[in-house]
Amino acid sequence: MPDADPVADLAEGIAAGDRRALARGITLVESTRTDHREQAARLVDAVLGRTGDAVRLGISGPPGVGKSTFIESFGTRLTGAGHRVAVLAVDPTSSRSGGSILGDKTRMEDLARDPGAYVRPSPSGGELGGVARRTREALLLCEAAGFDVVLVETVGVGQSEVAVADLTDLFVLLASPAGGDDLQGIKRGIMELADVVVVTKADGDLARAAAHAAADIRRALHLLRPRHEEVAPQVVEASAVDGRGVGEVWEAVEAAHAALRASGGLDRLRAAQARAWLWSELRGALELRLRTDRAVAEALPDVEAEVGAGTLSPAAGAARLLDLLGAS
Amino acid sequence: MPDADPVADLAEGIAAGDRRALARGITLVESTRTDHREQAARLVDAVLGRTGDAVRLGISGPPGVGKSTFIESFGTRLTGAGHRVAVLAVDPTSSRSGGSILGDKTRMEDLARDPGAYVRPSPSGGELGGVARRTREALLLCEAAGFDVVLVETVGVGQSEVAVADLTDLFVLLASPAGGDDLQGIKRGIMELADVVVVTKADGDLARAAAHAAADIRRALHLLRPRHEEVAPQVVEASAVDGRGVGEVWEAVEAAHAALRASGGLDRLRAAQARAWLWSELRGALELRLRTDRAVAEALPDVEAEVGAGTLSPAAGAARLLDLLGAS
Repeated sequence: MPDADPVADLAEGIAAGDRRALARGITLVESTRTDHREQAARLVDAVLGRTGDAVRLGISGPPGVGKSTFIESFGTRLTGAGHRVAVLAVDPTSSRSGGSILGDKTRMEDLARDPGAYVRPSPSGGELGGVARRTREALLLCEAAGFDVVLVETVGVGQSEVAVADLTDLFVLLASPAGGDDLQGIKRGIMELADVVVVTKADGDLARAAAHAAADIRRALHLLRPRHEEVAPQVVEASAVDGRGVGEVWEAVEAAHAALRASGGLDRLRAAQARAWLWSELRGALELRLRTDRAVAEALPDVEAEVGAGTLSPAAGAARLLDLLGAS
Repeated sequence: MPDADPVADLAEGIAAGDRRALARGITLVESTRTDHREQAARLVDAVLGRTGDAVRLGISGPPGVGKSTFIESFGTRLTGAGHRVAVLAVDPTSSRSGGSILGDKTRMEDLARDPGAYVRPSPSGGELGGVARRTREALLLCEAAGFDVVLVETVGVGQSEVAVADLTDLFVLLASPAGGDDLQGIKRGIMELADVVVVTKADGDLARAAAHAAADIRRALHLLRPRHEEVAPQVVEASAVDGRGVGEVWEAVEAAHAALRASGGLDRLRAAQARAWLWSELRGALELRLRTDRAVAEALPDVEAEVGAGTLSPAAGAARLLDLLGAS
């Protein structure tokens, strides 16, 4: 006799904290097959009542900043204090640039073996919108499986940080101790997302440079409006070698999260994020109808070329394509 | 005998530089009536061949920074040098906060009377997407009417600067000489849009403070990636009282524009903007179909409330609404 409903079984397994069920659930939400999408939506709905209790933490930084090393050190400290930590990755690039060619599990060996942690290798690339949806669904599954801290890591390719900020409560940005010009590796618009900026490698020969970089960043942050009015962004110098600052980062995160909870800001943020996801789902579905329409697909290259060349207005181009929609 | 085609007459008047025709044309593109939208699209298409030659310049700054005064001084200097200057405003807020309650024409009296300038009062508020579309169509009409510098001013309410940057070539950000905490009036993500930052009121008692603010901003810009790789952002101290720095701002703009033209970056930027506008038109039209669908409109408040409360997943909410689309 076959299973009556494999989705219900999966939901049950996830709720029981079964890691294999969680892994299968995440694989399901990552799939783009239409039947899998439908099952994934049902799975998320089935566990929705068990979600919402984690600290959702975005984390990013330019290549070479020591992100894997920091996450390993940070995550291990959290599991040591009794937290259950899940690490997800948002990577809209198919081929990594400047990073390790090894998988995430290999990157964070200790954390991957830690029974209190769950490290999910990044799914292969794709359009950022799709990656963001998979990640927020995976985040909900991790919460349902009992993880109380979910780290969403991104590789630092510009817009992906904004997407991660839109699905997390707080954002930690890692910065290089090299300071000066090297800090330009932080893409524009990203510095302002940060609730906590961590200057890495603040030990040995680099300790002094890290202190300078931290002072520079404090000054820059002073010129920028904080992301949450309840949270004054903190700058922390940290070292994965001697553990300096790592606990301080978590203290800053906990304090910020508590302030957001107390003010009602967290509920408002998450409700606004959920409504934005609804509209993003709607727009995505409508755009998919448009892009998969045969007549539109045939006309699109010409229309895009004419609009790009300035010989056809965007409004006229859009009208031409919409007239075709459903006409084939 | 009635006019064969009022849109063709309007296009002809605009091409001849008739200011009343331009004003009527802009009123037409600002209208949201369906028949007006269709006419507006035809008008833009009719003048499209005469567009593209202006320097398209976004300009913004927090309330109280002296924006009107600066634009008046800057614009008058340009018309004095033989330029024809149009000033448009993007204002998605219906009630201005912190600004003058007088109309734009009253705000910039000298420039509004200047035969070499055209100052268009801001249209009433509305959704930012709609405001951005009206503005980019108005910008094209101004170019067709022979204006070689188009200033697009925004009131500094966050996202509107990003929208203005998406429809202009270069961006001038005004900053207060007060420095320190007061500079937090600059919203997040905005500093990085700037190709030129102008510290205003750099005269008399404030000259020294302005110099400090300029140094702070130079340091902050150093940490951020410039918007165009060909353009190193400039910081200029300016005074509308004694005219200090105003010419320097235009020199910085001209140099940056020449560099963008020479590298081919300007063509690439505008082609990318046009393609983005096409998709924005398409998404807008599809969203309009969704929002004006009777069955969807009835179900929407409940779905949004459930999604916001976390009792319905965004994907399931979207599926429910899409099932209703066209079913009524």
